[in-house]
Amino acid sequence: MTRPLSVAVAGLGTVGIGVLKLLRENTEIIAARAGRPIAVTAVSARDRLRDRGEPLGGLHWYDDPVALASDPGIDVVVELIGSADGPAFALVQAALAAGKSVVTANKAMIALNGGKLAAAAERAGVAFGFEAAVAGGIPIIKALREGLAANRILRISGILNGTCNYILTVMRERGREFAEVLTEAQKLGYAEADPSIDIDGIDTAHKLAILAALAFDGPVPFEAIHIEGIRSISALDIGYSNELGYRIKLLGIARRSETGIECRVHPCMVSMRSPIARVDGVFNAVVAEGNFVGKLMLEGRGAGAGPTASAVVADLIDIARGSPLPVWGIATDALANTRTVAMKAHVGAYYLRLMVVDRPGVIADVTAVLRDLGVSLESMLQRGRSPGGAVPVVLVTHETEEASMQAALEKIEALDSVVERPAMIRIEPA
Amino acid sequence: MTRPLSVAVAGLGTVGIGVLKLLRENTEIIAARAGRPIAVTAVSARDRLRDRGEPLGGLHWYDDPVALASDPGIDVVVELIGSADGPAFALVQAALAAGKSVVTANKAMIALNGGKLAAAAERAGVAFGFEAAVAGGIPIIKALREGLAANRILRISGILNGTCNYILTVMRERGREFAEVLTEAQKLGYAEADPSIDIDGIDTAHKLAILAALAFDGPVPFEAIHIEGIRSISALDIGYSNELGYRIKLLGIARRSETGIECRVHPCMVSMRSPIARVDGVFNAVVAEGNFVGKLMLEGRGAGAGPTASAVVADLIDIARGSPLPVWGIATDALANTRTVAMKAHVGAYYLRLMVVDRPGVIADVTAVLRDLGVSLESMLQRGRSPGGAVPVVLVTHETEEASMQAALEKIEALDSVVERPAMIRIEPA
Repeated sequence: MTRPLSVAVAGLGTVGIGVLKLLRENTEIIAARAGRPIAVTAVSARDRLRDRGEPLGGLHWYDDPVALASDPGIDVVVELIGSADGPAFALVQAALAAGKSVVTANKAMIALNGGKLAAAAERAGVAFGFEAAVAGGIPIIKALREGLAANRILRISGILNGTCNYILTVMRERGREFAEVLTEAQKLGYAEADPSIDIDGIDTAHKLAILAALAFDGPVPFEAIHIEGIRSISALDIGYSNELGYRIKLLGIARRSETGIECRVHPCMVSMRSPIARVDGVFNAVVAEGNFVGKLMLEGRGAGAGPTASAVVADLIDIARGSPLPVWGIATDALANTRTVAMKAHVGAYYLRLMVVDRPGVIADVTAVLRDLGVSLESMLQRGRSPGGAVPVVLVTHETEEASMQAALEKIEALDSVVERPAMIRIEPA
Repeated sequence: MTRPLSVAVAGLGTVGIGVLKLLRENTEIIAARAGRPIAVTAVSARDRLRDRGEPLGGLHWYDDPVALASDPGIDVVVELIGSADGPAFALVQAALAAGKSVVTANKAMIALNGGKLAAAAERAGVAFGFEAAVAGGIPIIKALREGLAANRILRISGILNGTCNYILTVMRERGREFAEVLTEAQKLGYAEADPSIDIDGIDTAHKLAILAALAFDGPVPFEAIHIEGIRSISALDIGYSNELGYRIKLLGIARRSETGIECRVHPCMVSMRSPIARVDGVFNAVVAEGNFVGKLMLEGRGAGAGPTASAVVADLIDIARGSPLPVWGIATDALANTRTVAMKAHVGAYYLRLMVVDRPGVIADVTAVLRDLGVSLESMLQRGRSPGGAVPVVLVTHETEEASMQAALEKIEALDSVVERPAMIRIEPA
């Protein structure tokens, strides 16, 4: 057996400790599969004295993570510090410049700086692995870059944030409102104290940017992604969506259209019968569609120490085996010049739910607005009565352009008889 | 760009033509991703004159597939002839011996002769790819060998035969009997004229043998797999399974137990709420469970020209990229000495449906047999009445050993009041 692959782990939070634990528990299997042992030789974290429940004896300790890059005994740096810049970015840049391979779970960093880092890895002739950055234990990076490499990818979409999916699942199952379910999720540790990265769709967008880069052979500018979160989803709309045969999911979607790549993150109504509609709780799922393979769905745990460590170590095994791979699946100089499409050009069906004053003529006003903007209606539902009070009206449109829909929404909101901001949820074929 | 990878395709059926078509349609994407063009330069099939709807001009034609092995202009032989022996096996052996890499979709050959071929590929230092052999377009081979390589795999199971899943789905949806749905499936081209390889579970067992070898680091003797098909599934049992909250699926299951590897193919009742229960029609799905990643499900098209060609070409791209991989994920000399467990040692819950004479005391006789063999009952259902005639009785057991269950079945069948062979379906936690 050849020399062990010597690994440094920067960041000893849940995932970092998970990686140490995995490499210890599965040592023999991993050595057999990788063709050589994989050994952690150095670590770096903030607090040396904290008890992390995992023995760190015999490991070289660095207070400064960036110093790992200049340790000649290290082959691969595993970056698990997090955040797009700061020490994490400094460490990865330094490690690549020093000719060390890098493995990271840092989705924000890859979404925002992946292009630069990919080029640096290619120049240095080293590996840059980030299987753990998207959908935890689901090997979707490998699936896109290798398993589906023969295909022109037409569309990739997914439930990429377990916190949002958990909240939406509990709202549906118990008929509860967003705010209270969020509070509960925070207590259970399923949502962060500052939950905005998750619930405002940023985390999903980071992951989508990475998937889109792999699917469409080149990084997508993060600014080109349309991002909406789940704060505005109400129990009322979840109820109506059930009635209409849909589930509400926060999806990240990247689609190849005639004019470019459309990338968007927003709550979607997907048919109850579609496989992705049934992915509940903290689970993640990704659906990829290729011109030969058709549709493929991968479903599993998108977060947590075990699944994330599994993905980190899979990258280490690839490196130990000597499977060198261009970061985006293709060499940087062959990267496509990705053209993105603005959200206003998106075409799809829409669910609208208005609260209107219950008096004759209101529906006529609303439908006149839609007609004037060329939005055609598929169905309308106005069930409750509350003469003089406010009642919900649900409208489902045929396919229409986002720009027209937004204009219509503005005009509808301005109507006297419409008493609050209309709820709009895009209906997504799945 | 470096020299093209020169490929020979042996066998120009649906899949062979699919491979030619894919390589033609996606030429540029593939060259970019592989880092070099992949070009078919030679083909072999039985009938040179047949119109296959795909241009073959400019390709070197061989009447004898085995002759491809000695063409010095060929880097990789794609074997799509099929069957475990005969010309397919001769070609693959000759190609490996001649130092050519081989890609194949031939599950029977790998299930039965994979050990030998893996060793030959390793000796020759060439690649031996068979992503297309299991679950068509789903990249499950890569997922097991690489994506989940950090895990000790505990269990792998799947819907691996689209014909069986289609038949079971139609039986359930339309309440129809096996024989008539099979005839219809044959007319629609979803089942072969001689359907036994599919419906008797052999095809599923071939695929399971391959998955088990990858999951458990060494080939499993094909004879050690317990195989039952779906011929005995009746509309009556599908009805009861729905009522009990189950779906009936033909699963291939390989599980690591304390005493060895348990491999079995048989109809299973799986909870309606489990993801695999919802995989209907011709779709395939594989569930893998690792000690760190948890459960992961991959779902997609398990057959057809496009998905299978997608998998064949994924292997070609890996070869063009120069990602050399041991066939079973680990080197032959490190292979585990796989111990298999006999079916009689299987432990699980069972569904039994008897047809009994409707008279007092019958249930007492049946339950006495179960008690004497230590089989404990979870529930019993005897709904219809037909005094003097035959009525169905449904029994669900707690976990028990297969050996006890088989002994009980024999005794129950011998009871005077039991008028036909009892139906038995294993309940599988999913």
